Amino acid sequence: MNEHGSTKEQVHAAARRARIAAATLALTPRAGKDAALIALADALLTHTDEILSANALDVAAAREAGIGENIIDRLSLDAGRVAAIAEGTRDVAALPDPVGEVVRGSTLPNGLQLRQIRVPMGVIGMIYEARPNVTADAAAICLKAGSAVLLRGSSSAAKSNEAIIDVLRGALESVGLPVDAIQRIAADDRSSAQHLMQARGLVDLVIPRGGAGLIRTVVEESTVPVIETGVGNCHVYVDAEADLDMALDITINSKTHRTSVCNAAESLLVHKAVADTFLPRVIAALQERGVTIHGDAAFQALSPDIVPLTVEDDDAEYLGLDISAHVVDSIDKAIDHIREHSSGHTEAIVTGSLAASQRFAMGVDSAAVMINASTRFTDGSEFGFGAEIGISTQKLHARGPMGLPEMTTTTYVVTGSGQIR
Amino acid sequence: MNEHGSTKEQVHAAARRARIAAATLALTPRAGKDAALIALADALLTHTDEILSANALDVAAAREAGIGENIIDRLSLDAGRVAAIAEGTRDVAALPDPVGEVVRGSTLPNGLQLRQIRVPMGVIGMIYEARPNVTADAAAICLKAGSAVLLRGSSSAAKSNEAIIDVLRGALESVGLPVDAIQRIAADDRSSAQHLMQARGLVDLVIPRGGAGLIRTVVEESTVPVIETGVGNCHVYVDAEADLDMALDITINSKTHRTSVCNAAESLLVHKAVADTFLPRVIAALQERGVTIHGDAAFQALSPDIVPLTVEDDDAEYLGLDISAHVVDSIDKAIDHIREHSSGHTEAIVTGSLAASQRFAMGVDSAAVMINASTRFTDGSEFGFGAEIGISTQKLHARGPMGLPEMTTTTYVVTGSGQIR
Repeated sequence: MNEHGSTKEQVHAAARRARIAAATLALTPRAGKDAALIALADALLTHTDEILSANALDVAAAREAGIGENIIDRLSLDAGRVAAIAEGTRDVAALPDPVGEVVRGSTLPNGLQLRQIRVPMGVIGMIYEARPNVTADAAAICLKAGSAVLLRGSSSAAKSNEAIIDVLRGALESVGLPVDAIQRIAADDRSSAQHLMQARGLVDLVIPRGGAGLIRTVVEESTVPVIETGVGNCHVYVDAEADLDMALDITINSKTHRTSVCNAAESLLVHKAVADTFLPRVIAALQERGVTIHGDAAFQALSPDIVPLTVEDDDAEYLGLDISAHVVDSIDKAIDHIREHSSGHTEAIVTGSLAASQRFAMGVDSAAVMINASTRFTDGSEFGFGAEIGISTQKLHARGPMGLPEMTTTTYVVTGSGQIR
Repeated sequence: MNEHGSTKEQVHAAARRARIAAATLALTPRAGKDAALIALADALLTHTDEILSANALDVAAAREAGIGENIIDRLSLDAGRVAAIAEGTRDVAALPDPVGEVVRGSTLPNGLQLRQIRVPMGVIGMIYEARPNVTADAAAICLKAGSAVLLRGSSSAAKSNEAIIDVLRGALESVGLPVDAIQRIAADDRSSAQHLMQARGLVDLVIPRGGAGLIRTVVEESTVPVIETGVGNCHVYVDAEADLDMALDITINSKTHRTSVCNAAESLLVHKAVADTFLPRVIAALQERGVTIHGDAAFQALSPDIVPLTVEDDDAEYLGLDISAHVVDSIDKAIDHIREHSSGHTEAIVTGSLAASQRFAMGVDSAAVMINASTRFTDGSEFGFGAEIGISTQKLHARGPMGLPEMTTTTYVVTGSGQIR
């Protein structure tokens, strides 16, 4: 207990304030929400110096703690990054309002007019790791979708997040919207994340964003409904009927375009019919780009630098310059392998065969299937959604990149003239 | 441990067999699934005698255990009820196949063709109470939606469920579909439900159907994603602008048409502007039908038979001839009351005011809103969905009556010609 009560009481009190704010947001028309988003963007620019000063303290503390440079890079802000965050907020204002969209509608035989309409989710909890840009992105998307948001970032970004959230709340106040629509859940007590994910009845949805460990913890311990995001063990399958030049481009792009992201390829499967021709080319091209290949016997036979596959490799999300590689006897063996080892994010097939593309698309069980395209395209912005709050790898509610509609729920509004049963 | 291993091992083994069956179902075209559904319907009719004999044993055991007549009624089958179940299965065959439906699609600026397509969920677990008709209904809906189902009914219906599932599996075999698409999880060990709801990675979705206690247990203890169903504390709000004859009909129908169901009204709110006229009429009409009114002071002043409201009444799902009743000062007070006490199922407003109907529809936070119609219309069959697996009162994935589309997930299929980033 501190002066404000226990951490649990503080989290629940924040959630209750958020519910009240959410009731106001639900009745705020698009113009009011867009004006607020533009005010948020302007405020981020006006207060860039405060945000950068706070961020410098987080970065200095991270360096002192000996945190790796790649994490420090994710944590670091500069004027350009803050401007990009503000621009992203302005982009959300320009997107259509998902609230009020009629998903389906009909007139029933008894004259009742049935409409299924998108309505706000209510209160959304975000539990995320180092990147401070998630703070503003999530706040903007939730606001546009008519929901209040509770932001629980990591302690390593605490000062940056606090500065950004103060700016965002000030902007809400300036346009007359409830400041409690955007609230910070302090990260100084680790249990605050726990209380947020167990505030069933007060929080409608929790979205974890970060590494596999964070996501697993939230999925296992939350009693609030969760959307699981982002772990990607993506496969590229080169079919017997593949154009091998295309297969080479897609493999290299999927693996090396950006290695630290969830839509990068981590596994290569090659049909035996094209192995003799394709393997030497793909091995040379990957090795030239510094990729370590963890290969089966067929790969090992062709280069002394192939690392023998272990059981773990087939399930690994390397997020680096590594790839596991197999030769498979058939498309069905490729599908079976993917069903067994994939995290359900994105699988690509390279083939000229329509039948093979259809079998693959219906046979694997993942959020996205790329036919003759790089796995890197599974992305809200590439899909034209304009804003993305993460990529769902679960089957319930939302699967794949989540934009504004995925941040809403629906209600049935049935209009009659006195009908009874 | 028994000869087949622990209960957990048995449940997990069943789920693994179901996953294999689901992979086959995912590739089975509509004609194959419909033929199977017709075979299921035919087999239920052919084997009516076996099903009734098994049911008679369950009913006798229930009587011996002193179980109440209303539960025995739900448990009991006769030839007419079995024929109705078979007819329901045949109706599912006639519904459109949700699998393959294109939810959205577009061509992206880089030429990629983006399509979001409905695909099967995979393996669905049903945990439900006494009614044996749920066994066949759920099996038929899951089969049509391309998913395997694990059926965990209650021990009181064990023999009936076993007989029905044997018949259904025989029918699957007769049409060459995998029998493990429909499996029974034995109810003799209570922990089997626990293992089913915690088989994360093996089971994609769990749906509980039954009383509030069952649903709460599943929601709190499941690590598999859950869709919460059915608890209904539904409100009827009679607005200042209501047609009072219509308000009377809708109140009486919502409360008394069938009291044991989740879409029956449990609470009445009356705007003070019409209280003087409406209260005497509605009190008389409800009392005439044997309804006990748990009323506030305004109601108590009008009849000695009004039971004073307690704190519990506002949250009660009576499922019987009781109703809680308040006079409210404004529509906003009605909305606030409903947001605080409703289970989020269905709320009705009776009003002639367009503005009031819109404010109510956007202000309450429930799965369905009836404007000038009985709460009893929130129902998959009334909505024209043809088949219903329950009514979701949660916000994620499905809200309101769930038909075939709600039993599917989606995947993005992106077709290119070698695009890379």
